[in-house]
Amino acid sequence: MLWSGWGDPARAEPLPEAVVGLLRDLLGVRPAGAPPVALAEVRVPPCRLDPADLDALAATAPVRTDAESRVRHTRGRSTSDLLRIRAGDASDAPDAVVLPGTHDEVLAVLRACAARGVAVVPFGGGTSVVGGLAPRGGASGGSGAFVALDLRRMNALLALDGTSRTAVLQPGLRAPDAEALLAARGYTLGHFPQSYEWATVGGFAAARSSGQASAGYGRFDDMVVALTAATPEGTLDLGRAPRSAAGPDLRQLVLGSEGAFGVITSVTVRIHPVPEERSYEGWRFASFDEGAAALRHLAQDGPLPAVLRLGDEAETMVGLADPARLGAPGGAGCLAVLGFEGTAADVAARRGRAARVLARAGGEPLGAAPGERWERGRFDAPYLRDALLDAGAFAETLETATFWSGLPGLYGAVRRALTDSLAGAGTPPLVMCHISHVYPSGASLYFTVVSAQGDDPVAHWARAKGAACEAILAAGGTISHHHGVGTDHRDWYAREAGPLGAALLRAVKERLDPAGVLNPGVLVPPAAGE
Amino acid sequence: MLWSGWGDPARAEPLPEAVVGLLRDLLGVRPAGAPPVALAEVRVPPCRLDPADLDALAATAPVRTDAESRVRHTRGRSTSDLLRIRAGDASDAPDAVVLPGTHDEVLAVLRACAARGVAVVPFGGGTSVVGGLAPRGGASGGSGAFVALDLRRMNALLALDGTSRTAVLQPGLRAPDAEALLAARGYTLGHFPQSYEWATVGGFAAARSSGQASAGYGRFDDMVVALTAATPEGTLDLGRAPRSAAGPDLRQLVLGSEGAFGVITSVTVRIHPVPEERSYEGWRFASFDEGAAALRHLAQDGPLPAVLRLGDEAETMVGLADPARLGAPGGAGCLAVLGFEGTAADVAARRGRAARVLARAGGEPLGAAPGERWERGRFDAPYLRDALLDAGAFAETLETATFWSGLPGLYGAVRRALTDSLAGAGTPPLVMCHISHVYPSGASLYFTVVSAQGDDPVAHWARAKGAACEAILAAGGTISHHHGVGTDHRDWYAREAGPLGAALLRAVKERLDPAGVLNPGVLVPPAAGE
Repeated sequence: MLWSGWGDPARAEPLPEAVVGLLRDLLGVRPAGAPPVALAEVRVPPCRLDPADLDALAATAPVRTDAESRVRHTRGRSTSDLLRIRAGDASDAPDAVVLPGTHDEVLAVLRACAARGVAVVPFGGGTSVVGGLAPRGGASGGSGAFVALDLRRMNALLALDGTSRTAVLQPGLRAPDAEALLAARGYTLGHFPQSYEWATVGGFAAARSSGQASAGYGRFDDMVVALTAATPEGTLDLGRAPRSAAGPDLRQLVLGSEGAFGVITSVTVRIHPVPEERSYEGWRFASFDEGAAALRHLAQDGPLPAVLRLGDEAETMVGLADPARLGAPGGAGCLAVLGFEGTAADVAARRGRAARVLARAGGEPLGAAPGERWERGRFDAPYLRDALLDAGAFAETLETATFWSGLPGLYGAVRRALTDSLAGAGTPPLVMCHISHVYPSGASLYFTVVSAQGDDPVAHWARAKGAACEAILAAGGTISHHHGVGTDHRDWYAREAGPLGAALLRAVKERLDPAGVLNPGVLVPPAAGE
Repeated sequence: MLWSGWGDPARAEPLPEAVVGLLRDLLGVRPAGAPPVALAEVRVPPCRLDPADLDALAATAPVRTDAESRVRHTRGRSTSDLLRIRAGDASDAPDAVVLPGTHDEVLAVLRACAARGVAVVPFGGGTSVVGGLAPRGGASGGSGAFVALDLRRMNALLALDGTSRTAVLQPGLRAPDAEALLAARGYTLGHFPQSYEWATVGGFAAARSSGQASAGYGRFDDMVVALTAATPEGTLDLGRAPRSAAGPDLRQLVLGSEGAFGVITSVTVRIHPVPEERSYEGWRFASFDEGAAALRHLAQDGPLPAVLRLGDEAETMVGLADPARLGAPGGAGCLAVLGFEGTAADVAARRGRAARVLARAGGEPLGAAPGERWERGRFDAPYLRDALLDAGAFAETLETATFWSGLPGLYGAVRRALTDSLAGAGTPPLVMCHISHVYPSGASLYFTVVSAQGDDPVAHWARAKGAACEAILAAGGTISHHHGVGTDHRDWYAREAGPLGAALLRAVKERLDPAGVLNPGVLVPPAAGE
């Protein structure tokens, strides 16, 4: 991955001149003062580990302390993360990178770190956009030093059970590699989040990822039927059946734990035969509300496509995945994309039934072209963000979810909060939104914001994001549908969980990580006064 | 409910003479020595609460200490529970019954009990079959006294959201009452476990119930999108969206907590329009393996009926739900029952597609009669058990689940364990089994055992159940798919959760219930040495 941006540098493209012109005219975007610094110019702080620390770590697993390794494990891929690393600021770099190859090596690393007060940040694809890789403050009583525990060596498909349709995957498997290993046996996970090209299986589980085909294949946490986690206090090995009434579902305590409770060292996930056919298509609705009602009908009464998403008026107009069409005319209404996957007969039957539901709900069929365009560009947005940053624009996303009856209120409140905050800072934004994950009782909302960078985009965004988070809480939404909590959402998460829920998280954390070395400051709300 | 058995005494029927004859000839069943004692003859121990305790409780909610109330809250409805109460043994009776009417009254009861070292057993329908209502030992440091916290006064439908298709229900609502309240608005929960007539919404959530239509409507824990729980340390209020990436799913820590972490005081559940049509039908398979493979095809590739179950050869032969057919000839093969629910068009389409799948898998259609017979008798088994006990037979059930590839091994191991143990005790059993809950990656197994009572049926069964639990663990199954843990499964549950999983449960318990008053001995494994 590009150390200062997203993905394969060879795929990066500058924005077309016409788009640069529109950004200037519509949002006041001015060319940025400086391009990213060179990698060699990034300022990496001195390593805080002493030789005894390094010896203890090296006894457990390979250790790297070179500057490039440390830069490449600095923070995640939020826009603020990118702006800081592009400016040469690696002040949050880990003091070392440790590369265990087995569950037992992970256990050994955690025990060594717990014994020496060295904090540990589990690191998969490095794609967190919520500050999940930037611990606050180090281990309690420690030097502030922390290591990135990079799981890339644990990248095997350990077992495949065709009868149960499950596979055992190691956490460091990047999603495309997992898909390739499964495809060789005729299977797919069906998990395609926007971070697909770089994110890992362990990260999907630890952060409750949700992919673009979640309507058909489920969220990643739905896919996990068993898991193993290493903690400083030992091993958790959970899941003997798809579902159980044997007490609370402890799998659900590890899923979403973001490295704060332990390191997921294997997951057993549901797999599916590679579909015979994939078919994408577009539908137009007169308004976001009308389109949302149509999606709700499909989510509640079926048939449910594998992919189901709906842009609001702004996002439809901009056609974000296709920058050449930015600002193109004729964008009235809201574009829905449906993707059907399965046997040819099943795809045809579902498409037909879905078409009747959508037509009754006011939809107008647009045929395959908009669906195929969406599919081609489905992983492009992070590359586009790099190009926008290069052009002096600011672009960021946030997301939430709630029940259907609360969705319109949540949508309006978040839009207003973002618009008012950024306009007040002198960088009036374009705010776009889509629904991309639906359930019988509710759905997610995913917002994309583009504005001029202004004089201090990191600070401006922190204020706007804070206003949006307040609006989410006030409107009854969850602080994250699929990005996670990290450090960025932690204070709002504390309010969402409530004081007793937060106390429960601390009790679990204290039991599994009494030295407090695991991802300090991430996820778990501190006690009052801490 | 009948204090000494199941349900409405008016519905109890003696076994037909032919059945009694078969039980005698096949299993050596002899008429029992004595019928149940009269209610007035049940031996209730003296109340251990002192006047100050009773005053403190009475300040929070109505309190009953009469013998009948205490007998009616003694233990649950396992066969061993029934054998003991029929013999007049109410030695596990609560010292009082407390009837709070609101969340705040529940909080007040819990605080009063925590302050005075009085244990609390949350009580819904009283239908636990795993010792979930018989605490061991009372609160730590207390007198051993405990109260049943009966939730019957909290029996309202608090809210219904037709757009989100959710309803907010109080925990003391019995399932038929919940269905009636929802049906008046055009909705159903779709939750029909065998305990349906008496069990409550709170119990469904606390014990992760699963109903006969779980393939269509999901398990009860799938239905819950939000919940409120009262604990001695305060309130948990969880669930702002159908699904979230905001940390671990704390709802899943309360679901299945069996009153050991708190008292569920409301649940927000998914609801469905009352189906236009319900259609049940039977299919015959040559063997349990062949039938299981057919169910697996439906679970993995659809179409999934709302009800999907398959009896093994023994259960098919016996036709347990219809005692008049017990031992009837022509029972070769295995009976599957499918139930389709929805619009007429949807039911017809699914039935047609399912028929093609089942025929390809070797199934022979038997038409509507076996399905309708199953539907008529679906809640009869507990009444039949009373009749069997009256006739001198022993009848009990247990259940488990695992992944499809492990199901045949689990089936054989549990059958052998039950058969060997009871035959060794001189009461060779008839062991029957069915699959009634399916998932893409696995399924449940539900065993029914009938034997002669012998000289000490409670002790004989404890040994046989122990052998079955050992077999379940060794074969990779979960100790319960939908009955829960209670006191009966606790030691095996500890091994399933593993030492660190068990430690986590204790940490959660200690945080929510530091005085240890909530259902002591239920669910949570003790630390080594405790």
